Amino acid sequence: MKRRLLLVSNSTLHGGGYLDHCQQHICDFFGKDVKRVLFVPYALHDRDAYTKTARNKFKTLGGGNTFRLLKSLYDNKVVTEIRRRVMEQDGIPYMGSSAGTNVATISINTTNDMPIVYPPSFSAIGLVPFNINPHYLDPDPHSRHMGETREQRITQYHEEPDTQSVLGLREGSMLLVEGNKATLLGSTKARLFSRCPTLV
Amino acid sequence: MKRRLLLVSNSTLHGGGYLDHCQQHICDFFGKDVKRVLFVPYALHDRDAYTKTARNKFKTLGGGNTFRLLKSLYDNKVVTEIRRRVMEQDGIPYMGSSAGTNVATISINTTNDMPIVYPPSFSAIGLVPFNINPHYLDPDPHSRHMGETREQRITQYHEEPDTQSVLGLREGSMLLVEGNKATLLGSTKARLFSRCPTLV
Repeated sequence: MKRRLLLVSNSTLHGGGYLDHCQQHICDFFGKDVKRVLFVPYALHDRDAYTKTARNKFKTLGGGNTFRLLKSLYDNKVVTEIRRRVMEQDGIPYMGSSAGTNVATISINTTNDMPIVYPPSFSAIGLVPFNINPHYLDPDPHSRHMGETREQRITQYHEEPDTQSVLGLREGSMLLVEGNKATLLGSTKARLFSRCPTLV
Repeated sequence: MKRRLLLVSNSTLHGGGYLDHCQQHICDFFGKDVKRVLFVPYALHDRDAYTKTARNKFKTLGGGNTFRLLKSLYDNKVVTEIRRRVMEQDGIPYMGSSAGTNVATISINTTNDMPIVYPPSFSAIGLVPFNINPHYLDPDPHSRHMGETREQRITQYHEEPDTQSVLGLREGSMLLVEGNKATLLGSTKARLFSRCPTLV
C-alpha cells in the first residue's frame, strides 16, 4: 500500500498568507506532473464560491466545518470510494487541511468544530490508524476562560472505550504520510496523546 | 405550563470559587422548601466521584461533556421523561450549567465540546424553544489563533436549514425561565444570534 497523504493543521498561519507556511511542502507533495486536483468543497456552505477561491488561490484545501464535510461525504456516498482510491497501489495523493485532515483519520471524535449538522456516523475515511486534533493549542496558564483546555478534552475522549491515539497538530505543522512512514513537517511540532490503558 | 429553569453558562468564573457567581440565584431558584436535588452525573466519566463532589460542594451541576451527557440520557431513556416532568403543570425545577444548559435546549448543535461519543441524535430535551452557546466568547481582535471564532461557528450553523436562534451566554451569565418568561441574570450579559432569513 503506497498511500500518500499530506495532512495540514491549518491553511493560514498568523502573520502569513494563504498556505504560505506549507507552500513548498505542497509543491513537493504533488510534484510537477500533477495537472488536476479534485477539490472537495463540502465543508463550507457556498460550494461554488469556495471552489473558486480554492482554484484561484489554491487555499484552504479541505478546511471548513468537519461535521458538514463528513455528512456530505456520506450523503454523496464517497467515503469508501475515496478510501479505496487513496489506499490502493499507486493510489491518488490526498491533501487535507483542518476539517480535511480530521476526515482523513479514524473518526472525527477529536475535531474542534461545532456540531452544526448530524452525520450518520463519526467514523471517517480512515487513511491513518489514529486521530488528529488540528489547530492544537497548548494549555494557557494565563487564560481566564473556564472552558476545558484541548488537553482536557482529549483526556475525556480517552476515558471512552476503544478510542485512538490522538496527534495534536499545532498550527504551522503538517504530517506527510508515505506508505507506512509518517513525517512531521513544519515549524511548530505536534503532541502525541496515547490512550492510557489504566483508564479502561 | 409553569416550567422553571435556571440555565447557567459555567459553574466557575475566573477569580471566584465554585458557583460563587450564581450562588444567590441558585438559593432563590430552589427556595427553602426544596430538600432533595436529583443530580445527573452523566457528563463526566467517573460518576461516583462527580456525584460526591456535587453533593459536597453543590458545584458544577450539569457540567462536563455535552455529547457524553446527551448520549447517556438517551441510553437510559430519560430524555422524554425529564421533559415531561419539567414541563408539566407545577413541574420539577431544572438547573443546568454548561453541558447541562446545552441539553436543556432544542439541540446540542451549538455546544463547544469535543464530540467524544456519538449520541443517537443531536436533538435535546427541548425545555426552551431556542439553542444556547454556553461559555460564549466574543471575537478577540488580538488573537493569533486561526480557528473559527464562536461568531463564525454560529454563523455556519445558521447557514443550515431549519436551525434555531442561539443565545450566546457569556461566562458569568445565566438564564432564568419561569413559564413563558425568560430573565437574563448575572453580570456579563448575552448575545442573541437570530437566523438570517436571506440565508435560506
